[in-house]
Amino acid sequence: MSRSPVRAAPAIVTKAREGVDGDGPAVDSFMLDNGLEVVVAPDRRVPVATHMVWYRNGSADDPVGQSGIAHFLEHLMFKGTEKHPAGEFSKVVSSLGGQENAFTSYDFTAYFQRVAREHLETMMGFEADRMANLALADEVVAPERDVVLEERRMRVETDPGAQLSEAMASALFVHHPYGVPIIGWMHEIEGLNREHALEYYKRFYTPENAILVVAGDVEVDAVRRLAEKTYGRIAPRGAKPQRLRPREPEPRAMRRVTVADSRVEQPLMQRLYLAPSTLTAQGRDAAALEVLGEAIGGGPTAYLYRKLVLEQGVAVNAGAWYMASAVDDTRFAIYAVPAAGTGLEQLEEALDRAVAAIPAEALDDKAVERAKTRLVAETTYAADSQTALARIYGAGLAIGQTIEAVRRWPAEIEAVTREDLASVAQRFLTPRRSVTGQLRKAD
Amino acid sequence: MSRSPVRAAPAIVTKAREGVDGDGPAVDSFMLDNGLEVVVAPDRRVPVATHMVWYRNGSADDPVGQSGIAHFLEHLMFKGTEKHPAGEFSKVVSSLGGQENAFTSYDFTAYFQRVAREHLETMMGFEADRMANLALADEVVAPERDVVLEERRMRVETDPGAQLSEAMASALFVHHPYGVPIIGWMHEIEGLNREHALEYYKRFYTPENAILVVAGDVEVDAVRRLAEKTYGRIAPRGAKPQRLRPREPEPRAMRRVTVADSRVEQPLMQRLYLAPSTLTAQGRDAAALEVLGEAIGGGPTAYLYRKLVLEQGVAVNAGAWYMASAVDDTRFAIYAVPAAGTGLEQLEEALDRAVAAIPAEALDDKAVERAKTRLVAETTYAADSQTALARIYGAGLAIGQTIEAVRRWPAEIEAVTREDLASVAQRFLTPRRSVTGQLRKAD
Repeated sequence: MSRSPVRAAPAIVTKAREGVDGDGPAVDSFMLDNGLEVVVAPDRRVPVATHMVWYRNGSADDPVGQSGIAHFLEHLMFKGTEKHPAGEFSKVVSSLGGQENAFTSYDFTAYFQRVAREHLETMMGFEADRMANLALADEVVAPERDVVLEERRMRVETDPGAQLSEAMASALFVHHPYGVPIIGWMHEIEGLNREHALEYYKRFYTPENAILVVAGDVEVDAVRRLAEKTYGRIAPRGAKPQRLRPREPEPRAMRRVTVADSRVEQPLMQRLYLAPSTLTAQGRDAAALEVLGEAIGGGPTAYLYRKLVLEQGVAVNAGAWYMASAVDDTRFAIYAVPAAGTGLEQLEEALDRAVAAIPAEALDDKAVERAKTRLVAETTYAADSQTALARIYGAGLAIGQTIEAVRRWPAEIEAVTREDLASVAQRFLTPRRSVTGQLRKAD
Repeated sequence: MSRSPVRAAPAIVTKAREGVDGDGPAVDSFMLDNGLEVVVAPDRRVPVATHMVWYRNGSADDPVGQSGIAHFLEHLMFKGTEKHPAGEFSKVVSSLGGQENAFTSYDFTAYFQRVAREHLETMMGFEADRMANLALADEVVAPERDVVLEERRMRVETDPGAQLSEAMASALFVHHPYGVPIIGWMHEIEGLNREHALEYYKRFYTPENAILVVAGDVEVDAVRRLAEKTYGRIAPRGAKPQRLRPREPEPRAMRRVTVADSRVEQPLMQRLYLAPSTLTAQGRDAAALEVLGEAIGGGPTAYLYRKLVLEQGVAVNAGAWYMASAVDDTRFAIYAVPAAGTGLEQLEEALDRAVAAIPAEALDDKAVERAKTRLVAETTYAADSQTALARIYGAGLAIGQTIEAVRRWPAEIEAVTREDLASVAQRFLTPRRSVTGQLRKAD
């Protein structure tokens, strides 16, 4: 779900047709007069429509001292408007046989529904209504904050693995807000109130800051007409809200983080490296990091699994991943779960040796080609799912890519060479850029 | 230089006389109509006056993305006003046989001069002038930024030990700005410009945000008259600027930081623990942490030195310190320098054993009493230096203490018991609250 580096602003009207300038499926896009960007991805195999609204703000845009507010507001968006009381939207989706969901990430927040195509207008009406008319009474805000606090308690406070993840992210991003958990720090969630929510809502929930993605059995002209009738009535604010993000300083020190807890049943180790993202990378670096992640860590046929699990028997699982899709510098991760009888120190030594041997042992032409094929095939397969297709465009545009850049991605991946992989491994998988984490059973 | 926890706002007029409600020397304080707080500490042994202005803003108040601006502005404060061109103030101080200095810390910025008492008014005139009329032309700002960049290059970029300190602070304070270096991150200093400086100056360099401390051979009425004549003419802004500080989340993971560099001649290890400060501590915790730092780490007669250097011979130096004086949660540190032939791992094991044995071996009544006596004696001795006396009050008031709290400090230290020390050691010197740093020679 990550694409090539592009910094240009999205064009007002874009036509990108299959076979003309890329490999992805055909999509149309246009902008409403109030600045709302619209992407239409036709998929006529079944009479269903996927309707998504993406906002270009995520947890990394939370104001200082208000961590968790992006996620809190995502919850509050289900609390109704003047016109529609809390729960009505969800009840309607459900009564129409549809599905709905919402998610908050570091760089964006998104809401979506999947319904029979004839109900698209109803969805647009509800979603446009809560973009502008959210009701935020105190009676709603305080209990929902308790829900979020309970969510954090369940997800993090009782889970040593989640605590390790938070501590590792904090150690990797010492200055950038990617080091703050999406759900927020407990004591700051406790302090969130109606005024914070209202101020945040007014700042970010605007037509200029939103992207509407409609995928499915729809015509672009019909979508345009419906969009104008619903979202088009929302008054523009005159400008997009600004993201205020500090840049991470150049890392100098190797860092280690250990969580030791009596509840740990399965120890593990993970390592994060600070790496450029699709948006911050130079040249082919981001595409090369994607292929590298796949080649060394993309499942049981990849290098790390073969080496540590199959050949050496020191691990029961091992892999890697790269969070390419990010506005700012991001993380490349490797991990391993020790086999019974293998200590974390021994495992780490084996992992270190395996990482050092990447250029010599992991990057033969066959392995690189297989990784590229797997990556592109996965995305092609994903595009075959209407929801995944809509997500690829929504996420890409939300972090600042153009539609063209999103569609060019398979070609960018194909262009990566073995030398590119060796180069990014050598430049970015270095001790100084890393945080190593251990999850241990407490003595 | 750290005192008991007090949260009350300073009184408008305070008289604190020796023997009445505390043990410190007599000081007077009052407030000008524009909100400037004034402290006068008479010391008539020599005909000299120490003149200090403290601002309640330090590097931890730097706006997001503008780290280093508090320190940068401290530099710019020497660049002249409309009335006095750059360098004139310093030249006058020097021609009068005086001394001057300035410093930026996490929580405050301060400027001071020491001159013969008859020149106090001249100092007040210059200092008041630059509180309100700083000239910030582009021709001045850009070259001074280069000076600061060079200062950072000299102090940090070429010094692996300084890099370790920065990385450890970043790892300890994952959310609070105490994790950002006072001088700022290189790439953010590079981005500081005249507009940033001007905005910062207007926000923080105001009479309401300043504290004037005059120590020396002066009469309080004369100081008041001079202060009204100089600082009193500055228009008030109506309110103090707000500090916007996120609170550090409860730490969960033990962290380690390693800097390996070919330039390292002497390896060392250090450990920081997140601990409450004078202002955030409950009950006697801050005073107990001060006495604990002194008892285990205050020089060659203290516990860690005796244990690791004299008894076990694994270190050539070892000690501890506690940064009590801070607006928010702060650091308690222990450190050791390995003896020739001792590895850092072996040294750390010895240090871990020593820390675990603190309650049993470090806190006999004699050792605790000696530590208290040393601490109080040091401060009494410091109060004997006019500059140190002025600094104690300036720093205390700048972080939000009252004069009474500053003067109560010796009594607070005396009240600490052996049980208090064992309790803070057990609660705050725990792996989860810690960052352990190693400085190594690169292989």
